[in-house]
Amino acid sequence: MKKKLVLGATAAAVLTAGTFGAVSASASAPAAAPAAVAKADATDGNLFRSNHLTIEAATDAAEAALEAAEKENQRVTVAVVDRNGNTVVTLRGDGAGPQSYESAIRKAYTAVSWNAPTSVLAGRLAQAPNLKDIPGTLFLAGGAPVTAKGAPIAGIGVAGAPSGDLDEKFAQAGVAELAK
Amino acid sequence: MKKKLVLGATAAAVLTAGTFGAVSASASAPAAAPAAVAKADATDGNLFRSNHLTIEAATDAAEAALEAAEKENQRVTVAVVDRNGNTVVTLRGDGAGPQSYESAIRKAYTAVSWNAPTSVLAGRLAQAPNLKDIPGTLFLAGGAPVTAKGAPIAGIGVAGAPSGDLDEKFAQAGVAELAK
Amino acid sequence: MKKKLVLGATAAAVLTAGTFGAVSASASAPAAAPAAVAKADATDGNLFRSNHLTIEAATDAAEAALEAAEKENQRVTVAVVDRNGNTVVTLRGDGAGPQSYESAIRKAYTAVSWNAPTSVLAGRLAQAPNLKDIPGTLFLAGGAPVTAKGAPIAGIGVAGAPSGDLDEKFAQAGVAELAK
Amino acid sequence: MKKKLVLGATAAAVLTAGTFGAVSASASAPAAAPAAVAKADATDGNLFRSNHLTIEAATDAAEAALEAAEKENQRVTVAVVDRNGNTVVTLRGDGAGPQSYESAIRKAYTAVSWNAPTSVLAGRLAQAPNLKDIPGTLFLAGGAPVTAKGAPIAGIGVAGAPSGDLDEKFAQAGVAELAK
Amino acid sequence: MKKKLVLGATAAAVLTAGTFGAVSASASAPAAAPAAVAKADATDGNLFRSNHLTIEAATDAAEAALEAAEKENQRVTVAVVDRNGNTVVTLRGDGAGPQSYESAIRKAYTAVSWNAPTSVLAGRLAQAPNLKDIPGTLFLAGGAPVTAKGAPIAGIGVAGAPSGDLDEKFAQAGVAELAK
Amino acid sequence: MKKKLVLGATAAAVLTAGTFGAVSASASAPAAAPAAVAKADATDGNLFRSNHLTIEAATDAAEAALEAAEKENQRVTVAVVDRNGNTVVTLRGDGAGPQSYESAIRKAYTAVSWNAPTSVLAGRLAQAPNLKDIPGTLFLAGGAPVTAKGAPIAGIGVAGAPSGDLDEKFAQAGVAELAK
Amino acid sequence: MKKKLVLGATAAAVLTAGTFGAVSASASAPAAAPAAVAKADATDGNLFRSNHLTIEAATDAAEAALEAAEKENQRVTVAVVDRNGNTVVTLRGDGAGPQSYESAIRKAYTAVSWNAPTSVLAGRLAQAPNLKDIPGTLFLAGGAPVTAKGAPIAGIGVAGAPSGDLDEKFAQAGVAELAK
Amino acid sequence: MKKKLVLGATAAAVLTAGTFGAVSASASAPAAAPAAVAKADATDGNLFRSNHLTIEAATDAAEAALEAAEKENQRVTVAVVDRNGNTVVTLRGDGAGPQSYESAIRKAYTAVSWNAPTSVLAGRLAQAPNLKDIPGTLFLAGGAPVTAKGAPIAGIGVAGAPSGDLDEKFAQAGVAELAK
Repeated sequence: MKKKLVLGATAAAVLTAGTFGAVSASASAPAAAPAAVAKADATDGNLFRSNHLTIEAATDAAEAALEAAEKENQRVTVAVVDRNGNTVVTLRGDGAGPQSYESAIRKAYTAVSWNAPTSVLAGRLAQAPNLKDIPGTLFLAGGAPVTAKGAPIAGIGVAGAPSGDLDEKFAQAGVAELAK
Repeated sequence: MKKKLVLGATAAAVLTAGTFGAVSASASAPAAAPAAVAKADATDGNLFRSNHLTIEAATDAAEAALEAAEKENQRVTVAVVDRNGNTVVTLRGDGAGPQSYESAIRKAYTAVSWNAPTSVLAGRLAQAPNLKDIPGTLFLAGGAPVTAKGAPIAGIGVAGAPSGDLDEKFAQAGVAELAK
Repeated sequence: MKKKLVLGATAAAVLTAGTFGAVSASASAPAAAPAAVAKADATDGNLFRSNHLTIEAATDAAEAALEAAEKENQRVTVAVVDRNGNTVVTLRGDGAGPQSYESAIRKAYTAVSWNAPTSVLAGRLAQAPNLKDIPGTLFLAGGAPVTAKGAPIAGIGVAGAPSGDLDEKFAQAGVAELAK
Repeated sequence: MKKKLVLGATAAAVLTAGTFGAVSASASAPAAAPAAVAKADATDGNLFRSNHLTIEAATDAAEAALEAAEKENQRVTVAVVDRNGNTVVTLRGDGAGPQSYESAIRKAYTAVSWNAPTSVLAGRLAQAPNLKDIPGTLFLAGGAPVTAKGAPIAGIGVAGAPSGDLDEKFAQAGVAELAK
Repeated sequence: MKKKLVLGATAAAVLTAGTFGAVSASASAPAAAPAAVAKADATDGNLFRSNHLTIEAATDAAEAALEAAEKENQRVTVAVVDRNGNTVVTLRGDGAGPQSYESAIRKAYTAVSWNAPTSVLAGRLAQAPNLKDIPGTLFLAGGAPVTAKGAPIAGIGVAGAPSGDLDEKFAQAGVAELAK
Repeated sequence: MKKKLVLGATAAAVLTAGTFGAVSASASAPAAAPAAVAKADATDGNLFRSNHLTIEAATDAAEAALEAAEKENQRVTVAVVDRNGNTVVTLRGDGAGPQSYESAIRKAYTAVSWNAPTSVLAGRLAQAPNLKDIPGTLFLAGGAPVTAKGAPIAGIGVAGAPSGDLDEKFAQAGVAELAK
Repeated sequence: MKKKLVLGATAAAVLTAGTFGAVSASASAPAAAPAAVAKADATDGNLFRSNHLTIEAATDAAEAALEAAEKENQRVTVAVVDRNGNTVVTLRGDGAGPQSYESAIRKAYTAVSWNAPTSVLAGRLAQAPNLKDIPGTLFLAGGAPVTAKGAPIAGIGVAGAPSGDLDEKFAQAGVAELAK
Repeated sequence: MKKKLVLGATAAAVLTAGTFGAVSASASAPAAAPAAVAKADATDGNLFRSNHLTIEAATDAAEAALEAAEKENQRVTVAVVDRNGNTVVTLRGDGAGPQSYESAIRKAYTAVSWNAPTSVLAGRLAQAPNLKDIPGTLFLAGGAPVTAKGAPIAGIGVAGAPSGDLDEKFAQAGVAELAK
């Protein structure tokens, strides 16, 4: 396939600080073939970039959601999932039920997958009931999407409160933290 | 936590073309609460960006690896995995053994995790033998990392040839395609 | 059991080129007991043959489906699954939601299992709702079967567009590529 | 990708008898769109063919292996796996240990993956010890490959006897049945 | 397979013959502590006994089911599961869809769990719809129970035909073989 | 628990009393087709019987093992697994480490699979190191087999003490309870 | 995050008897760095405490449930799960169906997660049908919660009787044992 | 079993504040049978108590570990696991490799299971190599135990740095935060 996404000359300069050379070894042996690795560098025309919440931002958002729940004496778990579906932060609140951990992750996953609150998505099942059979999803209120320039970059999920509406209120408190 | 990664004013403008508004619905119902979603937009200070191979580039690389194998009459599977550990491309070559599919994915995953060829990483087990117990990894030659500005962004894995050295030679052919 | 499928004298001559002798070793040791292996050769009366898409054809079809989606600014994942249920090709499109990867595979699996588009199969659930509990299936529009002489040999699945009908339109574009 | 495997004009005429049209419905609804399905028929140039043991042959082989074990008062499980890695036949012998079922499947899978007896493959681990970390494999004697024209088409695995050598002797009895 | 294990007039004398002492070693080392093991022998008051199909009987039943399907040109998989939920026999028929393998096992499992045909059990979901959420079950016609003195000892499952009623007809043919 | 199921002088009369007819419905609907089910009754020639610990005996044994550990101030989990590999009893002792639960089950599974204590089986790995790759097994001291007439019918596994030898001593205390 | 739960000066004195020092080694090596471990001791302000059933109490409850079932000639499995979702006790009754084991665990898990009998929770699905998609749950009657001072600390689940109401009656017999 | 752990009259008063009554419903329906639930309250003699880190403490510790890594320009994931093996907090650091997430959880799990740093535990494999086959464990430096009065209550795991020693140094920074 020959056509390529062209992102322009300024692309591809992200995340280069730090110790990636060293990171190449989680074992203590020195890097074996730096020259070979250098050759592997992809040209800009082969790249696109995606936005992610920093871990600091994601933690702040999760803590804000948890605090919102604690203010109402609710015991919940909070999760933040990125647009790739990977879990970034989990916080299991004191006394939260055992079902809340996986539920929070799945609500977050569902919200970021369709870029909509899970309360809205649950309503859509009336028209496409089998959506809920997609692995990793959970169509229960309590998940809220996070966007950057309108595009989905993360989801925040909360589970454990007596109703999904409460869970989602807390998740939205987490989202609001990110817009400050 | 209060300090935040500051990426500067030009950050966070990626991947906004297309139909993300519409993407919020894989069901046919119209988006329910656009105003609420708009509020969720994260500020720049909460974001960092990562590089990814375009699907066109990843497919080209995988095909280059497969062609290199076919030229030597080898039956292999090729996989490309991104830095988040997600599989981006798989190509199961005609007549490749059943074990080659998952092997190729795991070699790619291992190469991108430590930013080194799996032939090099396999050697490191002498010092840290339990590295190979990490889920999703496979310490067999045949995986090669892809970088952008030196940072790992993907891995290419090949499996099915009579030796891991051959597999890795084909994987490197895929990497070389990206540097053109 | 004594009766056997008789396929005639011309059967069983497929896929013999290449390096299968060598393939017997993914480790570098030489083959140990060629004589013993030779004795294992099954007689024609014990064999039947099945058709598969070549990896070139399957890749072309997947790329055609992805291009059809890109033309309409949709972010999707495409998968091709063979009649044995094995994934042959996956292409995760740039910016496709995380749920799209497994969804595409399952739609393809479902289409090849019943040799019908998943939009049609979803309609059948009205009569046999528990069909959707079969592991590996997904009864959402977006999967299309591929046949050879009318018999199912593969499925193409697409996921990530705002509606299943769109997904299936792209999948059919992939199927059409194979009839050229 | 433009070049295609050319198999010649006689290819692709297999397995068309029977009720595949009907097979498209495991639900009782009539097939919805035969015209559309007809269009999906792949051209010959897009196909290759693979050999498989008929279920009658595979059952005969498994029974022969089980009988060989019973003659020596051994309690074993027997499995036959095809070149795609799918299990075709399993026979859990009376009184065989619980570990024997999955072991037999994995030995068969390993034998067909590398087209060699697992007793030979276990020896190769001295040079490539991490081969045994490939999912689905088991490097214990007791698995034997089945070929057609020298190419691997299936594996037979036996487990449960006091030694792997005994297991493999029984597996070879199954292979021998197919050469008759 | 026509010959059957002859157990004599006393039938069902429990499995004590054979080589269980030797079975204690799947490795080649001699048994280490026979005296200690001898002490472990449980007294009769601590035991109950259960009935199982011999592997010969289970294979005959599975083959009878498969032949019934072949007579009607249906491509199916057949499975036999015992009262402990363990799979005893699987036969994947030539050309059966990939979904049929796991489906057949689950139908057999469901039939033996509730000692009723799955066509009957599917009807019961009207009153207890969540029964179908029990892991390992499948509430689709095609599973039939096998009893001994009225108590459930096994299930036979068939999957792949155009309707569950056909599948179950073939499964019943397998059951009938056991009553001869 | 001190009282035991008294089965009378004939011991081990096979489990035909009770409510199996009723058991056929875990849903509240009445049994649909008793006549059809009656036909399914397998003839004696198709059956063999196996011995199992009664749940009372298995519980007594597990409690004896746990008490033996408590006497030495050890925090452990105890499991009993039958010859089919199914878990019959688990007791997670107060304060036992999280790893002990699955460990105890696997030790019991391993002991009953090869009818030997796991301390002995661990020693055999010197000759057949890949035995430990069989799914479900764990080659650590702490598992002991239970026999009836010398044939393996169950395993008892203990995990959580500072050494496997201690674990196995407690498991043997469980076995001894069954010989009383 | 700076505010902390303050539990008062008397907190944190639980479960210190026994051999935890020794427990740090399931291998036979002596503890390596006691001083370092001593530094890790968390201050009271960082702790909260939770209640658990002792294994003796949990076993008594499970046995009471099983006896209640046996009195009515029902064959069931009983499970006790704690508030963290971990299984504490399982007892597989003689002749209980294979589906009963996992069902009992999930009913117990569901009851403790929402602190309500599963018969009540099943009714709630009318309003929130997707609750049942949460992993690990089963919304079938037969699970009963156990509390301490009104807070949920465990669940008891029973499965295998002809109706969920019977199962739950037996589970309640187990709960009642704990209130004595 | 009659003897019970006696904890004294002051036991069992933990975690009763909040909204547990309401927590019994994650669905919006009102609680159905409060009287019945009240009867389930377990007596003190049936209880023991365990210590847990508050979510605030666990988050502080995880953040301390992450900051320690960031100060040295290392990209890591941090996890906190409680004594029941449940994950309490995860923080995936910016740019951490995909393998680091599960690795961090497993290191924490291993540390709390044996109440020792994983660097020490890895050394013990010389004597008991099969310890590392216990599911959920990872014997790589980077996990540190957290205690209360000397008993293990949690583990902190870090993964992603170039060496396990670095990972463990960061984990110990997290532990130190809890002793303040």
